Amino acid sequence: MPDRRERTHRPRGNRGRRPFSGRERQRGGDGAILLYGWHSVQAALENPHRRIRKLFATENAVRRLAEAGIALKISPEIVRPETIAARLSPDAVHQGLLAEADPLPAPDLSEIEGPLVLVLDQITDPHNVGAIVRTASAFGVAAIVTTARHSPEATGVLAKSASGGLEHVPFVLVQNLARALNELKERGFQLVGLDEEAETELSQAALRAPVALVLGAEGKGLRQLTRETCDLGARLTLPGTIKSLNVSNAAAVALHIVTSRIAR
Amino acid sequence: MPDRRERTHRPRGNRGRRPFSGRERQRGGDGAILLYGWHSVQAALENPHRRIRKLFATENAVRRLAEAGIALKISPEIVRPETIAARLSPDAVHQGLLAEADPLPAPDLSEIEGPLVLVLDQITDPHNVGAIVRTASAFGVAAIVTTARHSPEATGVLAKSASGGLEHVPFVLVQNLARALNELKERGFQLVGLDEEAETELSQAALRAPVALVLGAEGKGLRQLTRETCDLGARLTLPGTIKSLNVSNAAAVALHIVTSRIAR
Repeated sequence: MPDRRERTHRPRGNRGRRPFSGRERQRGGDGAILLYGWHSVQAALENPHRRIRKLFATENAVRRLAEAGIALKISPEIVRPETIAARLSPDAVHQGLLAEADPLPAPDLSEIEGPLVLVLDQITDPHNVGAIVRTASAFGVAAIVTTARHSPEATGVLAKSASGGLEHVPFVLVQNLARALNELKERGFQLVGLDEEAETELSQAALRAPVALVLGAEGKGLRQLTRETCDLGARLTLPGTIKSLNVSNAAAVALHIVTSRIAR
Repeated sequence: MPDRRERTHRPRGNRGRRPFSGRERQRGGDGAILLYGWHSVQAALENPHRRIRKLFATENAVRRLAEAGIALKISPEIVRPETIAARLSPDAVHQGLLAEADPLPAPDLSEIEGPLVLVLDQITDPHNVGAIVRTASAFGVAAIVTTARHSPEATGVLAKSASGGLEHVPFVLVQNLARALNELKERGFQLVGLDEEAETELSQAALRAPVALVLGAEGKGLRQLTRETCDLGARLTLPGTIKSLNVSNAAAVALHIVTSRIAR
């Protein structure tokens, strides 16, 4: 049975609270993205390439930013915590900080340089994608390539889960994943698909940099064309009873294995 | 600044919906726990040690269970999806299945056998603990030891995030974590604390089975007494900009490293 946890943005929790849908609530006006929470906003303020349009902060948060020596870029609008909470979903932990910002410029596929790229094949849950972005940043991934459709936007919950990682790992949106994979292959990337059905264990696979590590959604895995386009499929070594991990946990283990095995 | 993402069970989203708090909503009557979602309920039905008190299922879910050849243990009460949703938080993905069940019997600390045990030091977010349980199950962890206080209960969101893993990895609740660590040490376990401040890299550390891997909460890390009680502290090798991972991602990488390095 397909796992439905990847469904996202269910507006039911907001019924009667606000007149727009879950996805729209993640957006500011005119294509601005929303960043909230200490790590996300701090990293955005410290990123010279991130233009902040508006900054809403509680008195406490402004004091903490000053204590941490973080320049604000623009004058904050001092607000009460409830004012920020009203912009976000009920369970959002905003820590007194909310910014409206421009999306970051993303490089073209042909401009990506580095020993390791991550490719996401229709992973739709923004918490999972955010955790993957954070982990990708920790492992020094050069870019995350994903489809413009069937992917969450780099804003709101995704940005919060990424905990600042969005400022460090560019998000490259493509229209057609198989075509993008072929382009990476032509540029010399080894395409390694994480696939629990594969015979080869990732820790034993013949890897060579640069690697494009390809991950699919939980339950569904890699789409057939994606799998066929990869140079090799590999699985994690899981000695226990359950044979699959949460996709961000799988990404973390795979990134550890690949970074520790390819020359950097 | 301490990360507040570990705060949990914020009842605000339920305001005016139901007269009990987040924690109580995770419970059935008389100490029963709630299990929902396909993987959680399927694994509970397949676990001979799990007593199911009541099973609520949609017609579709009953048919899918039959198609998968899963015995129901007890007669289900056929309900509409909305009836199940009304018992859960608004964003819960229940897939037509909800069970009230007895908690699983947990072994005493002195009864734990196996090369690898996981110890959680005040990790409070039930999504994170659930993901850790799932991953621990995948890596064949013998038990998860945690404090009765400052830990989420093995029910509801935690069980859902564990995706069936709760049926395979016993949860051992202790009153005093330092005392429990000392008892594990006396029983021959090497206590390895994951600590981003440590000098030793986990992948280079001198490990010997049985290992008790000790994880603290994000931001706070291990408490001082916990750190002092460990035989050694070790960190993950993170070559990128961000130097910490989501705690379940860190657990996954650490479990991979330890299981691949100790004799099993």
